[in-house]
Amino acid sequence: MNRQITLAARPKGYPKESDFNLVETPIPQPEDGQVLVKTIYLSVDPYMRGRMNETRSYAPNVEFNEVMLGGGIAQVVESKHPDYCKGDIVNSHIGWQEYGVSDGNILRKIDPDIAPISTGVGILGMPGLTAYFGILEVGKLQDGETVFVSGAAGAVGSVVGQIAKIKGCYVVGSAGTDEKVSYITNELGFDDGFNYKKESNYQEKLSDLYPDGIDVYFDNVGGEITDAVFPNLRVKGRVVICGQISQYNLEEPETGPRFLWYCITKRARIEGMLVSDFADRHPEGLTQIAKWLREGKLKYHETINEGGIESAPVAFISMLKGGNIGKQLVKIAELD
Amino acid sequence: MNRQITLAARPKGYPKESDFNLVETPIPQPEDGQVLVKTIYLSVDPYMRGRMNETRSYAPNVEFNEVMLGGGIAQVVESKHPDYCKGDIVNSHIGWQEYGVSDGNILRKIDPDIAPISTGVGILGMPGLTAYFGILEVGKLQDGETVFVSGAAGAVGSVVGQIAKIKGCYVVGSAGTDEKVSYITNELGFDDGFNYKKESNYQEKLSDLYPDGIDVYFDNVGGEITDAVFPNLRVKGRVVICGQISQYNLEEPETGPRFLWYCITKRARIEGMLVSDFADRHPEGLTQIAKWLREGKLKYHETINEGGIESAPVAFISMLKGGNIGKQLVKIAELD
Repeated sequence: MNRQITLAARPKGYPKESDFNLVETPIPQPEDGQVLVKTIYLSVDPYMRGRMNETRSYAPNVEFNEVMLGGGIAQVVESKHPDYCKGDIVNSHIGWQEYGVSDGNILRKIDPDIAPISTGVGILGMPGLTAYFGILEVGKLQDGETVFVSGAAGAVGSVVGQIAKIKGCYVVGSAGTDEKVSYITNELGFDDGFNYKKESNYQEKLSDLYPDGIDVYFDNVGGEITDAVFPNLRVKGRVVICGQISQYNLEEPETGPRFLWYCITKRARIEGMLVSDFADRHPEGLTQIAKWLREGKLKYHETINEGGIESAPVAFISMLKGGNIGKQLVKIAELD
Repeated sequence: MNRQITLAARPKGYPKESDFNLVETPIPQPEDGQVLVKTIYLSVDPYMRGRMNETRSYAPNVEFNEVMLGGGIAQVVESKHPDYCKGDIVNSHIGWQEYGVSDGNILRKIDPDIAPISTGVGILGMPGLTAYFGILEVGKLQDGETVFVSGAAGAVGSVVGQIAKIKGCYVVGSAGTDEKVSYITNELGFDDGFNYKKESNYQEKLSDLYPDGIDVYFDNVGGEITDAVFPNLRVKGRVVICGQISQYNLEEPETGPRFLWYCITKRARIEGMLVSDFADRHPEGLTQIAKWLREGKLKYHETINEGGIESAPVAFISMLKGGNIGKQLVKIAELD
């Protein structure tokens, strides 16, 4: 049998376990051009929260009793596509389930010799590519600039800060625990960091950390920390909007100070991004990230819940509440 | 004698006449390299409000008892600079006063044969150049796109909308009186317009006007109209932040809905501008604007207070409250 996690209810605020159902269905059979895969690692990511809402995000939402969407690392069980053989490791998009069939054309092979296969949904997958194109292409990062990253210990933020360090920048990150701050400064080489839960005046804190202002702010969280950045931007500063996780689980939308005036005084640019906009350049990004990994210039961390498909909701909720360092994964099965 | 308007008090909310003093001083004498000029038209502009505050804007503020800053059209009375002769018409920056000396190098000659000299601080001056570089360079306007302009009947907005029409765009403007709406639609050729004081749901209004969304929003006002734009942006939409006049005279800063999430879903870009950033390209802009004027493709309107230097505060306050159509000027003296 195949076990799936489906959407039971649209969450109000943080999702609860009861917003999900565990369902058993037969293992599907691949047709011509399709591949049956078995999930090894399931990726749970902040963007999935938006897809649980009733109002459309940038892509269709999950419907009631539909399998929760998402990517993972999977192994080919049976292939009716010429490019794939039984046993191949692939990046799949079959959602939160143990088995699924996929059009072979949308799979991507993972080379297990480059790095552990789990990195295919982490630093060598969507989060790594988001960081790469976000900071370099949207942020137009220049060598030696000053960079601030919120959500700095997460799957994306941790890579953003390290790329900025490779580029000789001064980099500070914010995160929600002392352990995370220690991770980004001691393990990843950020110049500084702070636990936002222990700071009361972000604007002053940033002004102390950046006496000459911030050139590029990479925003994963939104809310009050982001508010505090605008007065601290340098002229021609850039703000990359990658995520707004502080806002995803609010029961009522928040208001905040108006900050567009600073866009004028600083001639600042705010720009949102989706990694899919750079799809044609993903191979280039993966090549560069793999090179930096080999050279030891990039590090990564994974927070793996080993509890199988039934623990995906718990792992997802934990990630939304900041329980992860680096990439949050769920281990679904062993490789054959 | 020379009469000047100086800053008497920092306004709280809208400036009052009592925030200004009328002062008499001797007419200054030019030194080598300097030019003594007599103001003919004084320009009063929204940005001056920010310079009256205690907190620094993008440039130094006016100090107490200092002459209010600003540009104007002036005539040379006495020149000790080789490039200028008595009688020349120039674009000056001597502030709110009848006479002043200026470094000859920062003056710009006005050719009275191209258009009435008053346009040198209007469509052929800072507001026209702001519109030109703002919509074309910052907004990266493409032929045939959909454009929304707030403050559309003002000195900048009225030019922005007309340039967008020249580029074959669908253009709607918002303004604060029915007369202004009639001006932009009947006189300037905007496709549509609305009186924001008569609308209660801007988001719905914009969604009716732009069923497929807005490509470029040129923002002169900020506040609630701007809030309503973000959900109505198209993918890859651009928001040019030129002014935030709705916020300049608030006694307490306003809060508003958080909208950065839309930057992600629309991959939108928000960018602030100052016309001075394009200083090296002003000649190119003026040449193009003058060409469009000659061809009858651009029109302009001026609201001229004829009351002399003593009426500058009243004209300024009126402009901040939306009393002007097109460029607000104060007539200070006749040409010799």
